[in-house]
Amino acid sequence: MSCFITFEGIEGSGKSAHQFAAAKALADRGIDCLRTREPGGTAIGDAIRGVLLDPANTMMVPEVELILYLASRRQHIDEVVAPALAEGKVVLCDRFEDSSLAYQGHARGLGIERVIEMSRAAGIELRPDLTILFDLPAESGLERAKGRLLEGDTRFELEEIEFHRRVREGYLRLAHQEPERFRVVNSSREKEVVREEVLALILEKLGR
Amino acid sequence: MSCFITFEGIEGSGKSAHQFAAAKALADRGIDCLRTREPGGTAIGDAIRGVLLDPANTMMVPEVELILYLASRRQHIDEVVAPALAEGKVVLCDRFEDSSLAYQGHARGLGIERVIEMSRAAGIELRPDLTILFDLPAESGLERAKGRLLEGDTRFELEEIEFHRRVREGYLRLAHQEPERFRVVNSSREKEVVREEVLALILEKLGR
Repeated sequence: MSCFITFEGIEGSGKSAHQFAAAKALADRGIDCLRTREPGGTAIGDAIRGVLLDPANTMMVPEVELILYLASRRQHIDEVVAPALAEGKVVLCDRFEDSSLAYQGHARGLGIERVIEMSRAAGIELRPDLTILFDLPAESGLERAKGRLLEGDTRFELEEIEFHRRVREGYLRLAHQEPERFRVVNSSREKEVVREEVLALILEKLGR
Repeated sequence: MSCFITFEGIEGSGKSAHQFAAAKALADRGIDCLRTREPGGTAIGDAIRGVLLDPANTMMVPEVELILYLASRRQHIDEVVAPALAEGKVVLCDRFEDSSLAYQGHARGLGIERVIEMSRAAGIELRPDLTILFDLPAESGLERAKGRLLEGDTRFELEEIEFHRRVREGYLRLAHQEPERFRVVNSSREKEVVREEVLALILEKLGR
């Protein structure tokens, strides 16, 4: 049974590590799953990711940033996600539309409605069956993320703490508006505890 | 007096060379003008151009190609074109929205209305005051363009002749629909003759 599960959260929320662990746990149970991420996951998406994360591109117009994410998303859906779902796979995706809503729509101030309008104009109709939001204070997330920065900061991690607070707030509002789809996981706890909870949520959704 | 003039046409139609010549002729007359191009004209646009023209990106979804052009256009408008027009300059731009309409809308089959819808969703509202369409048979254009290819073909120049015929057809339809804005120049003639005609059209528009 195909299922589209997205992993969302601020920088350093642990979503990528938990996505990796979940994919392994599902594979161990013989469940055919695909682990992928946004932006990227395709050659074209990775090239776009390079443009988006280059610290030199400080002049980027906020709507251009959004458009580039939409381009990457559309390519990723058509080339990777939709074919995997059509084959009946469970797809675990690190970031999806809610990232655009929380980052560009809420935190950058473009507005949730504007992001949805542009997203639909780009032909993006796919909705996740389950979205796991890894929630923790922006300060803790950035503290964790900083530990990973080796070859210079990316553009996003240089954003001020206030920006990351707004992203978190945006995510929590989205989760509040769609309680059926969202599951909010307190990511400040021990990794093992979070990992077990994530796996339980996924298995519940899959009816396993 | 600011004026936004776009140069359009198929590959090898001579628009870039004529844009260069026109900019020089205007500068010689003391007219403050800016020569720019799409995609590109900004650091971010040039990076996007790299993604678009890479022959390795054969899997690109047609709507993704369009979205990337829109991202580049929006950045280019906000960072380069609009500020120059605000300073009262004459802006000569190599390719603009009509390229998206002719290439992606008409030749690739996305539809003119779809391209306009996505363009408006991307916040692109600027319209050229004058558009010069360099028209010639697709075969002649490709013959000329081929002479320039030194370090391997770009993705577009590898398209089949039939595609370039459809692009030309798309351009001519646009010109037919907007006779006030478009001037169609027969680009099969001697370079000097075309150059003089282009300069006359621009000077007429500028009221000089």
